[in-house]
Amino acid sequence: MDRRKFVSTLGLGSAAALAAGCSPQDCGPAGETDGQTYRWRMVTTWPKNYPGVGTGPERFARLVEAMSGGQMRIRVYGAGDLVPAFETFDAVSQGSAEMGHGASYYWRGKHPATPFFTAVPFGLNAQEMNAWISRGGGQKLWDDLYAGFNLKPFRAGCTGTQMAGWYNKEINSLADLRGLRIRIPGLGGEVMRKVGATPVQLPGGEVYTAMQTGAIDAAEWVGPYNDITFGFQRIARYYYYPGWQEPGPLLELIINLEKWQSLPPRLQTIIEAAALAVNQEVYDEYTERNAAALEELLDKHKVQLRRLPDDVIDALKVASDEVLEALVAGNAQAEAVYESYRAFEKRAAAYHAIAEEAYYQIRTRTRDL
Amino acid sequence: MDRRKFVSTLGLGSAAALAAGCSPQDCGPAGETDGQTYRWRMVTTWPKNYPGVGTGPERFARLVEAMSGGQMRIRVYGAGDLVPAFETFDAVSQGSAEMGHGASYYWRGKHPATPFFTAVPFGLNAQEMNAWISRGGGQKLWDDLYAGFNLKPFRAGCTGTQMAGWYNKEINSLADLRGLRIRIPGLGGEVMRKVGATPVQLPGGEVYTAMQTGAIDAAEWVGPYNDITFGFQRIARYYYYPGWQEPGPLLELIINLEKWQSLPPRLQTIIEAAALAVNQEVYDEYTERNAAALEELLDKHKVQLRRLPDDVIDALKVASDEVLEALVAGNAQAEAVYESYRAFEKRAAAYHAIAEEAYYQIRTRTRDL
Repeated sequence: MDRRKFVSTLGLGSAAALAAGCSPQDCGPAGETDGQTYRWRMVTTWPKNYPGVGTGPERFARLVEAMSGGQMRIRVYGAGDLVPAFETFDAVSQGSAEMGHGASYYWRGKHPATPFFTAVPFGLNAQEMNAWISRGGGQKLWDDLYAGFNLKPFRAGCTGTQMAGWYNKEINSLADLRGLRIRIPGLGGEVMRKVGATPVQLPGGEVYTAMQTGAIDAAEWVGPYNDITFGFQRIARYYYYPGWQEPGPLLELIINLEKWQSLPPRLQTIIEAAALAVNQEVYDEYTERNAAALEELLDKHKVQLRRLPDDVIDALKVASDEVLEALVAGNAQAEAVYESYRAFEKRAAAYHAIAEEAYYQIRTRTRDL
Repeated sequence: MDRRKFVSTLGLGSAAALAAGCSPQDCGPAGETDGQTYRWRMVTTWPKNYPGVGTGPERFARLVEAMSGGQMRIRVYGAGDLVPAFETFDAVSQGSAEMGHGASYYWRGKHPATPFFTAVPFGLNAQEMNAWISRGGGQKLWDDLYAGFNLKPFRAGCTGTQMAGWYNKEINSLADLRGLRIRIPGLGGEVMRKVGATPVQLPGGEVYTAMQTGAIDAAEWVGPYNDITFGFQRIARYYYYPGWQEPGPLLELIINLEKWQSLPPRLQTIIEAAALAVNQEVYDEYTERNAAALEELLDKHKVQLRRLPDDVIDALKVASDEVLEALVAGNAQAEAVYESYRAFEKRAAAYHAIAEEAYYQIRTRTRDL
């Protein structure tokens, strides 16, 4: 997943739109409920209603309005409609919008600990991320981290494990990665560089042509649901798995901390529950749509599925550990987040090896009996 | 998971308690919000605050009260406090309690389609169950089924995949199952009978002694979180996986249909969102607690983990298909539910074999690199 494509087709955020804000009748108090009425704005890192990631904010806004009896109304802005995608974090931090929806790993330039609250290579999947945030100390660490930026974070959507990407060259061993020009952002790109590939930074809008002309050999996007809409099946030969680089991304809802603290407890509870409900619903959407899209890619578009070979995976794992170590080194807060994450991961991975993984294995093995 | 243990230590539901209902000041309208005030009762199939399954209803009640600003207050009754556990379905259907919390497969005597909305052998795990209910047509089928009993159902909790059970005899091949006396309820018990074991129906309260004295050789309960509290590690030698019989149970919230329809839309939305939020939170609790409990069982109690051999799994899979076919045979509604479930499962299993399963595999394999 990457923000660049989401932004590429959109103009810059308009300062005029930001200054205009809500109209007087939108901003004023409404008489339908007791107490103050809230007209809030949510900026997002996605185009409005982008499948999956972008439908979550709309659901959230509808839920909050319905549950509050209209006491809080949230207007959702797509990337670039009020501020550019990459300014979501700052806009909410500074209060020029009250809320935002995105993914914490976009804010790595703000703090090296942020990627741990979305996804890191060879880390927790969605089920485990949710449990770490909710019950393993993750929310407290996230709250503390974001409080330093005047923000309150909540989880608000899961995509499930991603795919390794689309390739026009077959990868049969680690040697095939050397010199491979692959468009893969973030930590995944750094890991790829360590194993000899050449990660290419490319705006999403240019990926299609670059892939088509052979300027790049491979590209990572999200998973079947978003990839099929993008059209990779028309320009790439092989669809590689598994998604080692993003095992189970969480999406985030961020709220300006002062605005959050000024809310009555009832609205705070409504917001928190709505975010949790949307967290589940977005995950449901991805699970169902990913399964349907994979079937279509294979049956209709005859896409060739490929598994990354063991020696490639091994090298990626070793490189991932190095990248994560380097990411947090020298930053005490990031090191504390990493330590908590790692401790949770160790325990969760040991359990799931005999629980969810073992169950998947017997189901897959006996499918045709 | 089984209801018998939950009930065994409790007395019968008291008719006097039911007749008394809420006290006058509880029942009367409150002045804090506009409109009618609701004082509802929720009966459950679990002892009050039983770890995991029983904490969900309490969270749900707190959430609804907070979000509605006190317009709806729900009093949660443990199994036997108002009605016996097994009368939860009837009590809510008839309106003597407005709400209930339990698991749909307890109501198989009411309709053969009910187990599909909790878990069936070799079926969907929690992630997939949620997606089927939400996006795969499951909710509509569930609504239609339960409307016939004057009920409206929602999902409200996941336990994750269960364990295969505690054994005092090692299972090295299918032959070792012949004559094995195993306490395993429901569809799992029927499957076990088909492969030559002897399923024993035993109230939960008697399992401990039966296991200790050798009256039974094995027993299935839930997973590490609930099993460690039960004390199996003191009386059983081997802990078998994976949990083929219950891959990812969903818990249910049921509401008397007429009462549900009489609610204002705002309260309906609050109830639905609270159920979804609790669905996620209970799952988080199980994921984190199961992982911690497994670690304790292995490290502190030196429990021996064992994997069911392939020939046993194969036989269980074939028998499971037969049991499910027989379950729905001759009931058009149950056949329709099974058909929808199976179609979804086929697609989800194909996707997850290369997504979640493939990811678990590389993580487990590279854990010690």
